[in-house]
Amino acid sequence: MAKKEDNTLGITVKKADDMPEWYSEVVVKAELADYAPIKGFMIIRPQAYAMWESIQDYFNGRMRKLGVKNAYFPLLIPESFFKKEAQHAEGFAPELAWVEQKDEDGERVAIRPTSETIMYDSYSKWIRSYRDLPLRINQWCNVLRWEVKQTKPFLRTREFLWQEGHNVYETQEEAAKEVEVIIKEYQKLVEELLAIPVLVGKKTQAETFAGADYTLTIEAFMPDGKALQCGTSHMLGQGFSKAFGISFLGRDEKRQVPWQISWGFSTRLIGAIVMVHGDDKGLVIPPKVADNQVVIVPIIFGKGKELEEGKKLQKELSQFNPIYDDRDEYSSGWKFNEWELKGIPLRVEIGPKDIEKKQIVVVRRDTGEKIVVPRKDAAKKVKDILDQMQKDMFAKAKQQLDDAIVEVKSWEEFEKAIKDKKLAKLDWCNTVECEEQIKDKTGATSRCMEKAKVSGTCLHCGKENKVRIYFSKSY
Amino acid sequence: MAKKEDNTLGITVKKADDMPEWYSEVVVKAELADYAPIKGFMIIRPQAYAMWESIQDYFNGRMRKLGVKNAYFPLLIPESFFKKEAQHAEGFAPELAWVEQKDEDGERVAIRPTSETIMYDSYSKWIRSYRDLPLRINQWCNVLRWEVKQTKPFLRTREFLWQEGHNVYETQEEAAKEVEVIIKEYQKLVEELLAIPVLVGKKTQAETFAGADYTLTIEAFMPDGKALQCGTSHMLGQGFSKAFGISFLGRDEKRQVPWQISWGFSTRLIGAIVMVHGDDKGLVIPPKVADNQVVIVPIIFGKGKELEEGKKLQKELSQFNPIYDDRDEYSSGWKFNEWELKGIPLRVEIGPKDIEKKQIVVVRRDTGEKIVVPRKDAAKKVKDILDQMQKDMFAKAKQQLDDAIVEVKSWEEFEKAIKDKKLAKLDWCNTVECEEQIKDKTGATSRCMEKAKVSGTCLHCGKENKVRIYFSKSY
Repeated sequence: MAKKEDNTLGITVKKADDMPEWYSEVVVKAELADYAPIKGFMIIRPQAYAMWESIQDYFNGRMRKLGVKNAYFPLLIPESFFKKEAQHAEGFAPELAWVEQKDEDGERVAIRPTSETIMYDSYSKWIRSYRDLPLRINQWCNVLRWEVKQTKPFLRTREFLWQEGHNVYETQEEAAKEVEVIIKEYQKLVEELLAIPVLVGKKTQAETFAGADYTLTIEAFMPDGKALQCGTSHMLGQGFSKAFGISFLGRDEKRQVPWQISWGFSTRLIGAIVMVHGDDKGLVIPPKVADNQVVIVPIIFGKGKELEEGKKLQKELSQFNPIYDDRDEYSSGWKFNEWELKGIPLRVEIGPKDIEKKQIVVVRRDTGEKIVVPRKDAAKKVKDILDQMQKDMFAKAKQQLDDAIVEVKSWEEFEKAIKDKKLAKLDWCNTVECEEQIKDKTGATSRCMEKAKVSGTCLHCGKENKVRIYFSKSY
Repeated sequence: MAKKEDNTLGITVKKADDMPEWYSEVVVKAELADYAPIKGFMIIRPQAYAMWESIQDYFNGRMRKLGVKNAYFPLLIPESFFKKEAQHAEGFAPELAWVEQKDEDGERVAIRPTSETIMYDSYSKWIRSYRDLPLRINQWCNVLRWEVKQTKPFLRTREFLWQEGHNVYETQEEAAKEVEVIIKEYQKLVEELLAIPVLVGKKTQAETFAGADYTLTIEAFMPDGKALQCGTSHMLGQGFSKAFGISFLGRDEKRQVPWQISWGFSTRLIGAIVMVHGDDKGLVIPPKVADNQVVIVPIIFGKGKELEEGKKLQKELSQFNPIYDDRDEYSSGWKFNEWELKGIPLRVEIGPKDIEKKQIVVVRRDTGEKIVVPRKDAAKKVKDILDQMQKDMFAKAKQQLDDAIVEVKSWEEFEKAIKDKKLAKLDWCNTVECEEQIKDKTGATSRCMEKAKVSGTCLHCGKENKVRIYFSKSY
């Protein structure tokens, strides 16, 4: 059988030329996702699901230390629950998918768009005393929002996978403190595991979660000039507690209303990995999130010797869960292309010359750099190269983020920054009207506010400045 | 504040007296599950979800070795998909929950009751050549079957969590071989991790999965005389492949139809743990599936010394993820009751005398046995006791299963065995009519068939015997 040499499976569009088309090609051709038979849904294929599992493992470990426990609440929620918290109801009503079957008492039921309502109904039964607090429960699940907007795998789909955490505290102080603890955990996850730098800050009122007092967010910036919200942590205050009748007997032996927070991130993070790190050859997986950190390709000339050595190498490098590609119906070149497309962090080549010289050749996916490594140091050197690659990928993305930020001092500068696909940083009035007008005029939305105190006048509306904020186009 | 001494939280019904009521109490009071606002749904609380995660971790490790990859397919399935495989359609039609929203082209969509149809639609696009085979994909997800039968947490609920594996092979031989590999993996999981012995065999035609050629099953036997199907592995043959247009270019360069299998187990396993191992004090978690294998209770007389030693002990026993119960508002007795109710495998007590004698007291949850252990050997001894406890729990359950099996030679013996809540083992004709009649007369259903060849006549209908089979009542 002729060896396959063609490269029609590769990416045909350059990232810089047409990022939306490039994204779609990478997602499908690197076998991350496939389009589902129903519009707006996606199939998460093993390559992407393995990244999601890496994220889950890491995050579960962190949350365990914080005392968070995982649980699972029902998929279907009665209509009356949505109506209990007015803002929340209004926020989600248009996106609910209703089920034809009714509850026993004839009530309509919808597929969960998020689980505040059904979880807090239980909380109202479980929480009796201050001894039951703090309560910290997280669930990994699917949610569904029947959006009519254009959908895109990972970035915006009707169904997606996520984690949603829901905590309850005795005091406002504790709640406020943990809203911050969580957003910092999100920052750590996204920066350290996914090598994606983020801005951390507070959302404006218009962008606050439906029913929350305020929302903290981590925002990443994509190479096409759009921000991507990567995780949010909401201070819910006492609104949901009051709406769902959650109360507890306090240390003072009086009945009190607790304070709540909720927090979540989703499979959208996989879309961020693709966009931030991918290149014209395809996906580039940050080492820490890669299921297979290494692919070993024996370069076969003779018979057997390279295969035998490759097998040995596979054992030596087992801590990196290597793929061992000894398929004889494909050429080495074809294999290189395939694994580059799929983004495996390191390729290890071993051919007759390498065996002779007692070495291996390690090729970094992000830079293409070839590094000759003495065979006896293989595991140690591979580890070092992976660590360096993780750092370099973050540093490169950080540089891109820093380069994207433009501090603007006038409306003209603001308009130019948005037109140039930058992230505009400015001192701003923090009013709903001004935000709406800016959005209408430029298409830019507020991303997040820094804690800094500012003074002066808003460059758009002339009112008093109150906050330092980022604006940009966004996903 | 007065220390809590009352034990109203305990189980009020004896397991032997009223097992259904006992089961409901244990599930709710040990905080495994709670009833959801919609009938037939359940909330899986952290205590039970942690067991599910232990099961997932173990099973993912095993499946990785078999080359199985995890993925995620959409929650909603178009109506036309269900109709493609006739038997499958007929089997699931009555239980589908339809969504009010329609697909873009006006087609009805339902929440997945199982994912054969939507997965095989994708498989028909992904599988091109023998090089793409075998394909082994698993997903952990929620499924929904709008059953009208009485529901019970974990055992029978409209929504449940499960894993469903879906493999495709070039040949019938490979498929048949892996149907068996999987059922043996299920047996290993349930026997070694959950300490629950099972019967392994083939289902009769009446009990075969809708659309499958045949089904292998593992069946556990509950103390109330009912069998519980704990996992099934289905040989799908080529029926779904043909229905969904899955084909591949074979090694002979001809287009061929592949062979498929599917396999699953669910959160029902948690119900089995409760029923098999639980006692009048509550839950007993097998050590290997316990998130917290140990609870440390310092017996406080003086001030501080016991607490200090308890803290040290917590570190020494960290490999067992111990709960450290130093709450001062509860008495030791209250704590003992609580952790016994919740089924923590070992309780470790440390009081003033123990500190003096450089020892700890270890109490086994399954037997109540108190074991005095020299403090310096704590970690090693706790490990040994846990290992022994796991073995003993399995042995006890195995004895119960063996005792339940009655080899019956006549119809009278059969009727008596079923009446006595036993598992009747018999040589049988293996016809659909005979099975229906037996069910109508006794309420017993066929559980599984052994491979043994038999001869003689059926004790019920007088036809020729063809199989050795187990019958009993069941969940």
